[in-house]
Amino acid sequence: MYRTHNCGELRIENIGETVTLSGWVQKSRNKGFMVFTDLRDRYGVTQLLFTEEKTEEELLKLAGTLGREYVIKVTGTVTERSAKNSKMSTGDIEIEVTELVVLNESKTPPFKIEDETDGGDELRMKYRYLDIRRNPVQQNLIFRSNLAIETRKYLANQNFIEVETPVLIKSTPEGARDFVVPSRMNPGQFYALPQSPQTFKQILMVAGMDRYFQIVKCFRDEDLRADRQPEFTQIDCEMAFVTQEEILNTFEGLTKHLFKQTLGVELPDFPRMSYDEAMRRYGSDKPDVRFGMEFVELNDVAKGGDFPVFNSAELVVGINAEGQADAFSNKDIKKLTEWLQRPQVGAKGLVYVKCNADGTFKSSVGKFYDDATLQTWADKFGAKAGDMMLVLSGETDKVRKQLNELRLEMGRRMDLMKPDDFKPLWVVDFPLLEWDEDSNRFHAMHHPFTAPKKEDEEKMLNGDHETMKSLRADAYDMVINGSEIGGGSIRIHDRALQARNFKLLGFTDEEAEDQFGFLMGAFEYGAPPHGGLAFGFDRLCAVLKGQTSIRDFIAFPKNNQGRDMMIDAPSHIDDTQLKELNLDVTVEPTES
Amino acid sequence: MYRTHNCGELRIENIGETVTLSGWVQKSRNKGFMVFTDLRDRYGVTQLLFTEEKTEEELLKLAGTLGREYVIKVTGTVTERSAKNSKMSTGDIEIEVTELVVLNESKTPPFKIEDETDGGDELRMKYRYLDIRRNPVQQNLIFRSNLAIETRKYLANQNFIEVETPVLIKSTPEGARDFVVPSRMNPGQFYALPQSPQTFKQILMVAGMDRYFQIVKCFRDEDLRADRQPEFTQIDCEMAFVTQEEILNTFEGLTKHLFKQTLGVELPDFPRMSYDEAMRRYGSDKPDVRFGMEFVELNDVAKGGDFPVFNSAELVVGINAEGQADAFSNKDIKKLTEWLQRPQVGAKGLVYVKCNADGTFKSSVGKFYDDATLQTWADKFGAKAGDMMLVLSGETDKVRKQLNELRLEMGRRMDLMKPDDFKPLWVVDFPLLEWDEDSNRFHAMHHPFTAPKKEDEEKMLNGDHETMKSLRADAYDMVINGSEIGGGSIRIHDRALQARNFKLLGFTDEEAEDQFGFLMGAFEYGAPPHGGLAFGFDRLCAVLKGQTSIRDFIAFPKNNQGRDMMIDAPSHIDDTQLKELNLDVTVEPTES
Repeated sequence: MYRTHNCGELRIENIGETVTLSGWVQKSRNKGFMVFTDLRDRYGVTQLLFTEEKTEEELLKLAGTLGREYVIKVTGTVTERSAKNSKMSTGDIEIEVTELVVLNESKTPPFKIEDETDGGDELRMKYRYLDIRRNPVQQNLIFRSNLAIETRKYLANQNFIEVETPVLIKSTPEGARDFVVPSRMNPGQFYALPQSPQTFKQILMVAGMDRYFQIVKCFRDEDLRADRQPEFTQIDCEMAFVTQEEILNTFEGLTKHLFKQTLGVELPDFPRMSYDEAMRRYGSDKPDVRFGMEFVELNDVAKGGDFPVFNSAELVVGINAEGQADAFSNKDIKKLTEWLQRPQVGAKGLVYVKCNADGTFKSSVGKFYDDATLQTWADKFGAKAGDMMLVLSGETDKVRKQLNELRLEMGRRMDLMKPDDFKPLWVVDFPLLEWDEDSNRFHAMHHPFTAPKKEDEEKMLNGDHETMKSLRADAYDMVINGSEIGGGSIRIHDRALQARNFKLLGFTDEEAEDQFGFLMGAFEYGAPPHGGLAFGFDRLCAVLKGQTSIRDFIAFPKNNQGRDMMIDAPSHIDDTQLKELNLDVTVEPTES
Repeated sequence: MYRTHNCGELRIENIGETVTLSGWVQKSRNKGFMVFTDLRDRYGVTQLLFTEEKTEEELLKLAGTLGREYVIKVTGTVTERSAKNSKMSTGDIEIEVTELVVLNESKTPPFKIEDETDGGDELRMKYRYLDIRRNPVQQNLIFRSNLAIETRKYLANQNFIEVETPVLIKSTPEGARDFVVPSRMNPGQFYALPQSPQTFKQILMVAGMDRYFQIVKCFRDEDLRADRQPEFTQIDCEMAFVTQEEILNTFEGLTKHLFKQTLGVELPDFPRMSYDEAMRRYGSDKPDVRFGMEFVELNDVAKGGDFPVFNSAELVVGINAEGQADAFSNKDIKKLTEWLQRPQVGAKGLVYVKCNADGTFKSSVGKFYDDATLQTWADKFGAKAGDMMLVLSGETDKVRKQLNELRLEMGRRMDLMKPDDFKPLWVVDFPLLEWDEDSNRFHAMHHPFTAPKKEDEEKMLNGDHETMKSLRADAYDMVINGSEIGGGSIRIHDRALQARNFKLLGFTDEEAEDQFGFLMGAFEYGAPPHGGLAFGFDRLCAVLKGQTSIRDFIAFPKNNQGRDMMIDAPSHIDDTQLKELNLDVTVEPTES
């Protein structure tokens, strides 16, 4: 037996007991006549004591040789510490060791196994097994495990059944790029890895499973931006005989349960905001509502004057940065303007109006507008002395996106985004379609299975551009602190309506049949009304813990080139393997 | 709102209530002046009543048009049935319907949506969404979901953390064939799908996670035999600082918990049997011990006589089929012999000895052995009047396998394998290596990471064939009713020993480093002793439910050609997709 107790559980009540512990040497202080060793495992740290008086000479000598991260097993007596450590759960006791076995030695780790490490990202990923020994990473993984447990507990109590859907499925060109898997048994054919179990969960509703969920891996072969992974995990859910309202209530309930059980946080009821309203007030379909600084539209007071830029703009819109007038020098504003003009944001310029203490204004457009006019602006913003209004202009959609970036940046600078302040909301009534400039056609904003609002079904037959843009769907996102953590919709369950939607999206009948014939076929055999949603599980973990990177909640993440640095994958495969799969590689393989 | 109640919950207490139900029309009996409709959902069936007296004419007419599997929503009053049906949970009541909405129509299903269906396998798979509406399939999926819940509950209580390991990993030629995934971002390189998370779970032990589990999809590109799936699910577990004994106790505990919670069955403690003993007594490493009929070796009494076949055999061994002397005519025995001689079994012949009531014997080798000799056989078997001894001979390993087949066949014929009689055991002390005739080298019997028994470590350096065959490992299987439902081992955690093992298995140092360098590297940084096991989850479901096919416990199984008949996968992919992946297909694709 390697242990009678773990390294986190011995207390003052255990004094006098003979115990055996195993773990890693966190650190060892050798004072010659005495060795203190901190022994660590997942559960905690226990102090070991070897002393000249009580320890055999051989043992004391061996104890002196223990290096960092050695794996040892000790037997000894629990004794009371003279100098207690109230920061450690085992801080009242130590172990007077009588037996010591070195189970495994360790080379010196390439970085410190401590809460704050000196290891860079690449090193940590290569030696992920050492990185995970660090408490923050280990606690993140444990948190993730608990979050999954609580998710399953809640959903099972609500009659949801977890059903495993297949991983080897069929490639569909719609949406993001699929990872594909060549089939040896079906030469020249390929499976695809699922981007989500969407069609399968709908099939399960047609199959009468009524309430389905799955915590499931999904895959997208996209160019990886920071904090995107080629494989990621969803809490995937679907319900039959259900209205949007019931879905929102069910998953609002789940989210409240998760916050309560894992953080002890009681969330209030989630406000609901239409997509249009979110865009108007925040310029984003995932507004961070931890702080105000809402958009104020100025067309009526800013246009028709002497400033040609505003006069020619479709929309003049701004935010009020409270108390920031003095915080921003001309140089700061210039820098902020340059930040806004980067291609990532793309604003043309920035107009500021500072509210002076004496009721006058200092503004970059002071020569175009008199103080009386600027006062009408300030009235709209509710701006008072010391505030600074920041105004952008341009095409409506673009300027809103730019102002959203500016608002978030100001929120960060003004420290308005507290990681432990949680402000969830539902964004609802999303457009059914969005225009894609690149392909010059409409795409499904959510996905092609999303139902249009009942009153918009007929309009789908009309088909002019503006009507198409105006179509609304029973689609919704759950947003917390500016992150979209879940989204879903009521689905189409009628074959004819689904066919109509595919047509809008530019599918030929043949393509629709080839790719989704099984689903449209299923709709002919008594498909119930249904809908659902999916949470991004990695993101959910990060948001709950107030962190921005999902990578720290994934045991073995991939880097931005899609590589696993630890196992060094992907890699070359044997020619015999390629031959069995009837494949030729058309490039010289890159060095891995 | 689509419903106030589901179709399985209304009782006599609800009488008088106005309720709304939604579901599928199971059947509808139209008597003109009255329509009875059975409304079905996942939760049950409720009878709906439309009558001339109480129903509006229009509604009664509409009710008369309802076809099988139509999806409807009704509102009405719960009333007491005059003719109660005690077989239905809702059999005391019916609904007098006042409102009826047809939510979706249905074509006539291609097979009956009933417990016993007239649909063939292929039809059921193509229309899996209809097949899953059938109660037995739906109940299997719900059972599976519950089994997963109970598994997680037990393991979480035991401090196991569920960690998701990656699906896109690295191909290793060892073991079964990998499915591979071409990487677009790393041209010419491939990921592989995991055959199991073996190396990752070991890495997690090195990483200090202490106790890991995961219910996880695994993948093997093997030629599919009946009841094997290219993707399957494991309960994958690993523990650090643990002995074999502790592992067996932990997972015996899990198994008892699962039987108790899902079936109400209290399993006794699991007997333990060495691999050698299992082979000697049952000719199998997964003996079905629901019945005896153990092997009896006859070398001492059957050899040295006049029967040359036995004299030249390495092993003469048989079983006693109690009370079967009269049940088998000469013709039956001839048929049984032919069954044994099929290539799948490969026995050369079959010797029988029937025990007559008068103490004499009737035997196919009667002319070689007198009754006194046959009596010594009968004594060994404990055979009595009416019994029939069945004896095979040949090379030890082969004849044991053949006799195992015969024993199981006799068990089936004698109806000794009751599906609700559960006889679990642990088979332990497996050989480390097994000789592979095809490749003319040793393979790891479990996998290359399995630790040899401490006392055999030195012998690994010796290396002659017989010594190699004699090496024993700390490896174990859990067997229930002749099915291996789980298996595992104590792992190597020492770099040098792992290298020695790879060498035995014919790896060059370079190959070992290339494929498993990360693991051997990890062993240098304080790897703890560890071990674990994995359950075949699909098989576990089937064994608990006393069924032989795993396919009925998988929502969307693939057929023997690895095809999903419903979605028609695998399939062709676009040339642009191939081009992006830098691949050429070297065959004309087969028709899908």
